[in-house]
Amino acid sequence: MNHYEFRKSDGKSRLGRYHTAHGSFDTPNFMPVGTKASVKGIDTERLFETGCQITLVNTYHLWLRPGAATVRKLGGIHRFCSWNGPILSDSGGYQVFSLRGIRKISEDGVEFRSHLDGSKQFLSPERSIAVQDELGVDIAMVLDECPSPELTKEEMERSLDMTLRWAKRCLDTPRRDDLAVFGITQGGRHSDLRGKSAQTLSQMNFNGLAIGGLSVGEPKAIMYEVLSYHPVQLPADKIRYLMGVGTPEDIVTAVREGIDLFDCVIPTRAGRFGRAFVSKQAAEKPYLNIKNATFAQSSEPLDPGCDCIGCRRYSRGYLHHLFKAGEMLGPQLLSIHNVTHYSTLMKRIRLAISNREMERLYREEKERWAGIDFGAEPPKIE
Amino acid sequence: MNHYEFRKSDGKSRLGRYHTAHGSFDTPNFMPVGTKASVKGIDTERLFETGCQITLVNTYHLWLRPGAATVRKLGGIHRFCSWNGPILSDSGGYQVFSLRGIRKISEDGVEFRSHLDGSKQFLSPERSIAVQDELGVDIAMVLDECPSPELTKEEMERSLDMTLRWAKRCLDTPRRDDLAVFGITQGGRHSDLRGKSAQTLSQMNFNGLAIGGLSVGEPKAIMYEVLSYHPVQLPADKIRYLMGVGTPEDIVTAVREGIDLFDCVIPTRAGRFGRAFVSKQAAEKPYLNIKNATFAQSSEPLDPGCDCIGCRRYSRGYLHHLFKAGEMLGPQLLSIHNVTHYSTLMKRIRLAISNREMERLYREEKERWAGIDFGAEPPKIE
Repeated sequence: MNHYEFRKSDGKSRLGRYHTAHGSFDTPNFMPVGTKASVKGIDTERLFETGCQITLVNTYHLWLRPGAATVRKLGGIHRFCSWNGPILSDSGGYQVFSLRGIRKISEDGVEFRSHLDGSKQFLSPERSIAVQDELGVDIAMVLDECPSPELTKEEMERSLDMTLRWAKRCLDTPRRDDLAVFGITQGGRHSDLRGKSAQTLSQMNFNGLAIGGLSVGEPKAIMYEVLSYHPVQLPADKIRYLMGVGTPEDIVTAVREGIDLFDCVIPTRAGRFGRAFVSKQAAEKPYLNIKNATFAQSSEPLDPGCDCIGCRRYSRGYLHHLFKAGEMLGPQLLSIHNVTHYSTLMKRIRLAISNREMERLYREEKERWAGIDFGAEPPKIE
Repeated sequence: MNHYEFRKSDGKSRLGRYHTAHGSFDTPNFMPVGTKASVKGIDTERLFETGCQITLVNTYHLWLRPGAATVRKLGGIHRFCSWNGPILSDSGGYQVFSLRGIRKISEDGVEFRSHLDGSKQFLSPERSIAVQDELGVDIAMVLDECPSPELTKEEMERSLDMTLRWAKRCLDTPRRDDLAVFGITQGGRHSDLRGKSAQTLSQMNFNGLAIGGLSVGEPKAIMYEVLSYHPVQLPADKIRYLMGVGTPEDIVTAVREGIDLFDCVIPTRAGRFGRAFVSKQAAEKPYLNIKNATFAQSSEPLDPGCDCIGCRRYSRGYLHHLFKAGEMLGPQLLSIHNVTHYSTLMKRIRLAISNREMERLYREEKERWAGIDFGAEPPKIE
């Protein structure tokens, strides 16, 4: 239970499988985000049909509402949201640290005011693990401080040192035997701080390691630079999870550098706003905006290379109409499509690694994204 | 094609089947409303799973957006919205007559301004049938004037006379062979005007007849009074459709008076706002509000007597959480549940008629609704 099984590599890319008490998932893989225990607009039967193997929930949100005790009373997170596969929870740190102005950080933890009712709350490393334990997830993340990319290196290192002390406190917190805990590296763009993160966490008994503090507002070139050296600093016998990333381009780039696991709100959020990721069969450009007038009279499916319900049953013209008419079915269908697109991308990646063709897949995808700026996204919190 | 097949009666209640070019539906039956060619929040695979056999779209809305020519170009209404069963369209009259202040009625038809862009439009009986023909529906409704229940009897009769002249013009409009047209009776609460409606329309070659002008803001007692004599004024060899009705109580009442077909936004609209119709197994009261705090910790299904995805996979506590957290999955699941509840009610009704137990079912349902005011509904237009 709770271990990473390495299978095969292709360059730095790795094919593997991660095992939990609620089944296994293949790696590289992508987790659609179900912040409040629901991947927005997608019931869990439809979610299963997308090819999704693991989903993510958010500790901060579920802790405040409905509360971990309620989730436990309702049978634990798996029964609660009716997803019987692996579930990972974010620690809540990222959300708490986003509450600028209404939080106070100390060595003990972070005091903040709930965004729901203004009540005073306290989150510590121990508390975070206890809440995740009570929720009943398969994989808990340590509580880390997520520093602004604008900090000086000295401030960044001070923050990192506390994050590393917090990591140990998380690991020392009593918990269920079947609850895995992943550590998180920080250190911003600084290779020595990233190295220090990796080295320190490698010596601790985590079930997996994650890279935090990327895709938090810094230029993309910085993320790619860190990815060029950091993943392989992490132990080869543990799963490597890049948090909060990203576009298909980011994903192939990171897999090629040795990353095994991703999560991001992009597929669901973009879908709700009418942006659909599509295969090369559907369009040269890697995504299209279904609200664009050019699709109004199109009887083509959104993506002929996709077998989701949106592509199987409906035309681009109908999907365009749903968005123009403000029908909620539009966001639902595009969210399902995008999550399916991501699952399919991950399958293609795993097949490419297996066939030692990852470099070809990477170049193909990079070519499709050349010159494309996916655009300023709304805040990453969903 | 396009005819009503009478099978069996129980008192005034009738068991039957109606046949169209896109298959048949059992009667009595209920049509969930898909105003803009989407039953809000429900994809057509899920809609099929509810037990739905026929759905309704709105001519006014589809005419203005995306336009009948676009729907035709995209393969007609069935392919457009991916529903291969029977589809009936409302004529658009009800919507146009709701545009108080921006419409002008004459014998020719009604001039109005589009609610979308303010453009001037003209709807006539001929135009209404032509649009419904082009949309490709199986059953078109005549254009009628829907008079305010507050008109004097004299004004009501003047309106009715024009509606009857319009009915003939609709019937005389060239159309596809496989497009059925249903006439609509008006006359408010006046039994002689209702009788005149019925008599005049009975002599015309309609495929079915509908009762209009009820459930439009008048006290419920008036609707029940009209239902006590009016349905049996309509020819026994044609289907009888009561437009815009209603609650389960209204439906059993009307079936007992000889009605065969219904449509209403109540199941989807109530669902979006957290109200769920439930069986006696689930609660004494015929509906519950899932947002009520009493459900926060309930691990029970919404309705143990229901096999919809909401009841099969999720608890009341989770559904409560979805509504509290503002997750769109909540409205989706309750809409599916309510449409399923209505389908199940119609099945129960058909079984009861078949077993000559309609009176028992009627009394049971009336008892559950005794003293309950379902509450002021938002406007009936969806």
